[in-house]
Amino acid sequence: MSEDLFLKIINREIPADIVYETDSVLAFRDINPQAPLHVLVIPKTHIRTINDIGAEHTALVGELFTAAAAIAAEHGYADDGYRVVMNCNEAAGQTVFHIHLHLLAGRSLSWPPG
Amino acid sequence: MSEDLFLKIINREIPADIVYETDSVLAFRDINPQAPLHVLVIPKTHIRTINDIGAEHTALVGELFTAAAAIAAEHGYADDGYRVVMNCNEAAGQTVFHIHLHLLAGRSLSWPPG
Repeated sequence: MSEDLFLKIINREIPADIVYETDSVLAFRDINPQAPLHVLVIPKTHIRTINDIGAEHTALVGELFTAAAAIAAEHGYADDGYRVVMNCNEAAGQTVFHIHLHLLAGRSLSWPPG
Repeated sequence: MSEDLFLKIINREIPADIVYETDSVLAFRDINPQAPLHVLVIPKTHIRTINDIGAEHTALVGELFTAAAAIAAEHGYADDGYRVVMNCNEAAGQTVFHIHLHLLAGRSLSWPPG
């Protein structure tokens, strides 16, 4: 078993409600959803936190956004709108140390964002 | 004058409290801060919303994250943590139609993110 919870999902060692996949990106529903659509979009490459994103990862991180846009569109939220969020370390509540872009859609999202 | 508020900032047509700049990215303080550090990180290329990010923009979007990490580190928040947020269209409260990554740091950030 891999040490990283999300690598276990990528490797199908534990189940998840997968909604999108490419060679480099996987997306699945958050188990504790905060909106009608709440999906986590992750790179298949292990990157621990935003602080660990190197120049070699920038295109991959950008792909998390094109994936989020595709998922939002597929679920009918592209025009109404959606929010994407990524947390780094404790002050932001990061609990799994493999970067993941939260995609939230299906309700009005207030400000500030937490 | 350019139509896009953020292009005016990039072009120094209107002032902003700029904290970071590269050839491709600019970052400046939000005029209505929601945390002790609240910076907007934008590409110098005009991209209207997340829906408009194309395959040709993925590395540039990833650079918004390496910029955010560098700014967080420079202000002493890399270890404690921070949150990055991007809004798309009305449900998320997007008001300027040039993509911008909000970087919030310096306080505990609650969940859900709005």
